[in-house]
Amino acid sequence: MELTGSSIIAGEMQTTSADFYAINPVDGEKLQPGFAEADGTLVDAAVTAAERDFDAYRMLPLPERADFLLEIGDQLEAGRSDLVDRAGLETGLPQPRLEGELTRTVNQLKMFADFVRDGAFLQTRIDPAQPDRQPLPRPDLRMTQIPLGPVAVFGASNFPFAFSVAGGDTAAALAAGCPVIVKGHPAHPGTCELAAQAIVAAVKKCGMPQGVFSLLQGSSHQLGGQLVKHPLVRAVAFTGSQAGGRALFDLAANRPVPIPVYAEMGSVNPIYVLPGALAEGGEELANAYADSVALGVGQFCTNPGLLFVVKSPELCSFAAAIEQRMQVAPVAPMLHAGIKRNYRQGFEQLQQRKGINFCAGNAPKGDDCLATPALLQTSGERFLVDPQIAEEVFGPSSVMVVCESIEQMLECATALQGQLTATVHATEGETQTCRKLFSLLERKAGRLLYNGFPTGVEVCHSMVHGGPYPATTDSRSTSVGTEAIRRFLRSICLQNFPPSLLPLELQR
Amino acid sequence: MELTGSSIIAGEMQTTSADFYAINPVDGEKLQPGFAEADGTLVDAAVTAAERDFDAYRMLPLPERADFLLEIGDQLEAGRSDLVDRAGLETGLPQPRLEGELTRTVNQLKMFADFVRDGAFLQTRIDPAQPDRQPLPRPDLRMTQIPLGPVAVFGASNFPFAFSVAGGDTAAALAAGCPVIVKGHPAHPGTCELAAQAIVAAVKKCGMPQGVFSLLQGSSHQLGGQLVKHPLVRAVAFTGSQAGGRALFDLAANRPVPIPVYAEMGSVNPIYVLPGALAEGGEELANAYADSVALGVGQFCTNPGLLFVVKSPELCSFAAAIEQRMQVAPVAPMLHAGIKRNYRQGFEQLQQRKGINFCAGNAPKGDDCLATPALLQTSGERFLVDPQIAEEVFGPSSVMVVCESIEQMLECATALQGQLTATVHATEGETQTCRKLFSLLERKAGRLLYNGFPTGVEVCHSMVHGGPYPATTDSRSTSVGTEAIRRFLRSICLQNFPPSLLPLELQR
Repeated sequence: MELTGSSIIAGEMQTTSADFYAINPVDGEKLQPGFAEADGTLVDAAVTAAERDFDAYRMLPLPERADFLLEIGDQLEAGRSDLVDRAGLETGLPQPRLEGELTRTVNQLKMFADFVRDGAFLQTRIDPAQPDRQPLPRPDLRMTQIPLGPVAVFGASNFPFAFSVAGGDTAAALAAGCPVIVKGHPAHPGTCELAAQAIVAAVKKCGMPQGVFSLLQGSSHQLGGQLVKHPLVRAVAFTGSQAGGRALFDLAANRPVPIPVYAEMGSVNPIYVLPGALAEGGEELANAYADSVALGVGQFCTNPGLLFVVKSPELCSFAAAIEQRMQVAPVAPMLHAGIKRNYRQGFEQLQQRKGINFCAGNAPKGDDCLATPALLQTSGERFLVDPQIAEEVFGPSSVMVVCESIEQMLECATALQGQLTATVHATEGETQTCRKLFSLLERKAGRLLYNGFPTGVEVCHSMVHGGPYPATTDSRSTSVGTEAIRRFLRSICLQNFPPSLLPLELQR
Repeated sequence: MELTGSSIIAGEMQTTSADFYAINPVDGEKLQPGFAEADGTLVDAAVTAAERDFDAYRMLPLPERADFLLEIGDQLEAGRSDLVDRAGLETGLPQPRLEGELTRTVNQLKMFADFVRDGAFLQTRIDPAQPDRQPLPRPDLRMTQIPLGPVAVFGASNFPFAFSVAGGDTAAALAAGCPVIVKGHPAHPGTCELAAQAIVAAVKKCGMPQGVFSLLQGSSHQLGGQLVKHPLVRAVAFTGSQAGGRALFDLAANRPVPIPVYAEMGSVNPIYVLPGALAEGGEELANAYADSVALGVGQFCTNPGLLFVVKSPELCSFAAAIEQRMQVAPVAPMLHAGIKRNYRQGFEQLQQRKGINFCAGNAPKGDDCLATPALLQTSGERFLVDPQIAEEVFGPSSVMVVCESIEQMLECATALQGQLTATVHATEGETQTCRKLFSLLERKAGRLLYNGFPTGVEVCHSMVHGGPYPATTDSRSTSVGTEAIRRFLRSICLQNFPPSLLPLELQR
């Protein structure tokens, strides 16, 4: 596969100019080729093509839609070495991680293919006619689901495959029957183009209408805004920062015709370790926690940014074990220099707050993109008076909040804002406290974990990768798992339709 | 049941003052007693009580929640004659209609009671652990639904029972496990108070926590705004005008923590009569159409405000039959003088537009609240250049759009904005055209009807009473039928929970 540096509109490469480049985070060097910044004309061309081909796409038999998803997966596999090589250059992520992420991305497409083929996602309901009912007869009423229309997808920087061009949002929207226009992440434009080429190849091979997919390349906020405000766009999926997600949400809510924005904006994913679990878990628990903080250089939405413990004699050796583990964690590059800069600034600002002390690991330093894990420490009392401590610092750091008592720990849980996940570590003897804690935490998070770690998001039917604001802009949605398809569907009711007019799934 | 003129906050009557009165629309006279306008302090008291009792309510076993819904229905039945009498005075609606609407309201509560007791609404999913999976084991993952929290409900004027204090939105939110704060409609405050007393009696009898329900009485927009902006309110349900719904939507979207607003704002519910159906249906079709326009003095969200036909020889006698039927329609009072005034103004403005002619029935006139059905006429050509013709005029009028051809009719369908319903009348020989039309209309509406009329919304599992904007602010929702419960729920995932911590519905 060759890179052109162009956006791809309904299968067509556009004229190019070198407006921006990907940067290798490891050596700071520009990567060739240059990429052209898409403009309003291309946005309109992409969305108009999507709208034009929406009916043809959504009305295809479900097995054809499923085969198309599988073919995208096959095309990604065919381009695997190119994809992994380019993503490695653009993100600095190690090859095994990228290989695994690409496999996950292909599996997501397979999962949605199976889900679509099965048809159960249409959640059909039938209330048969009751012609003799008194005082009025009941008509025949049948419910199915229809797709919303063209969907704008904004890829994330931290998962160049799984949350990018051919990632979960694209797979879910295509599975629902919606054409997709991706705004590629400017940190990995080459990876974006290669993935888009794979999708375009699948479109051609499966004879899909070409408007079903377009990729817009660009590094400006303006481009994203134009896309969200285009009248023919019907929904938006986004993974990234709180500022970015909220900006798109506001644009969409202020449209003459508002549209849903599913922005997954990350969170601090608190972990609560009850005293018994701390005493019992000891070094093993400390290691697992330090590893979860360090995983992917802390660049996961589910990175545990807060650890709540209760003052105890064992705390000292627990912290010492974390320190030991963090000191041997590999030094690794963050995704790009900007992320590292933000991490360093965020960490330093947090460290300067009243009542915050350095505890373990290494504070971020230098102008390169390298980082290792670090742990700060504060008291439950400080946490309750300073909401800034609970703000996300994107990177491999975490704050240990030492509470005076279980009661203060519960108070800290009540004070939390919305989260993707919340975790409790407890022994069997602590079930009562654990239940109390979970009853508070279930109002705060989309996923609750018992004796585990939030990093690692399983792609399956029961997954909820979402949560109350500001974890997402729509707490009723998930961006991972089959339930993610519901974001792009709405119910429709057909009244007294003759069999010849009923869609296949309602013909019984 | 005695009227106090007070808001009811968590079971408690408040001090009263006569700030506003209900008006009998038939004679324009004030009805006693006066009602006190709730203020920000009462809003805060109601919402705080709802939040305080949310956990206790949502954690009750589902059968207790179901019994509570049934008891509300029983209490409404016990107050039936008071409710119907007062609603008759406040709305001018005829007794049989009110009796029927109250029965429907009780049936809605029963339907949700059954639905909650059954538990299937929790849509549980289980992905069992796979400890031996390679390269990584899969944890045990289980999904269920949890309620969002306190819900603000705004009642409509046109259904004083079914879309008011104890109506569908309240039933759905309580069924979901959410406390409800109703902002009563100021056109029928006495009916609101009586229904609220019935709910409070059910709260007491069932031993529910009292914060589960409050009624705020008031006639100001400010009150509604305060309620929607209260930080502890988690969702809003509204039935009413487009201006009102959009205003609440904007307030909610601009909150620091945005919340969903489910505003059902009505629509013009177009009916398409294909040439064969017109020729075959003749007078019977004309009568049924005129009756649907006249039903409830045109004060239904599903009132058919647009009729599309194709020029044909039969059109003349079809219009004559409509004229005849409309002339014998009973003169009836609209809900209040303001609605009649708006209807007259809207009708007159529409009639003055270029290319609009009077066709049948009687134009609204006078300062009283009386009205009879009326039909205006225009051409497909005018419809396509003047979007104002498609705007809702709330009342018993409709516009017949005479198209040059089927093609023009399809063009008119493409030009439509979002609708609650869209209807096609066709013969068996017209199935091809009908299919084409429905494929356009299904992108526009929440419910499609074949050879029927949109008035009459069945309360059942398959009903969708919703549709794309501006029919609603959230096309993925319905405000009628069991699916309406989903508006107040979100998915949650529990990872590796021991059986002792799993909720009942996930213990298997």
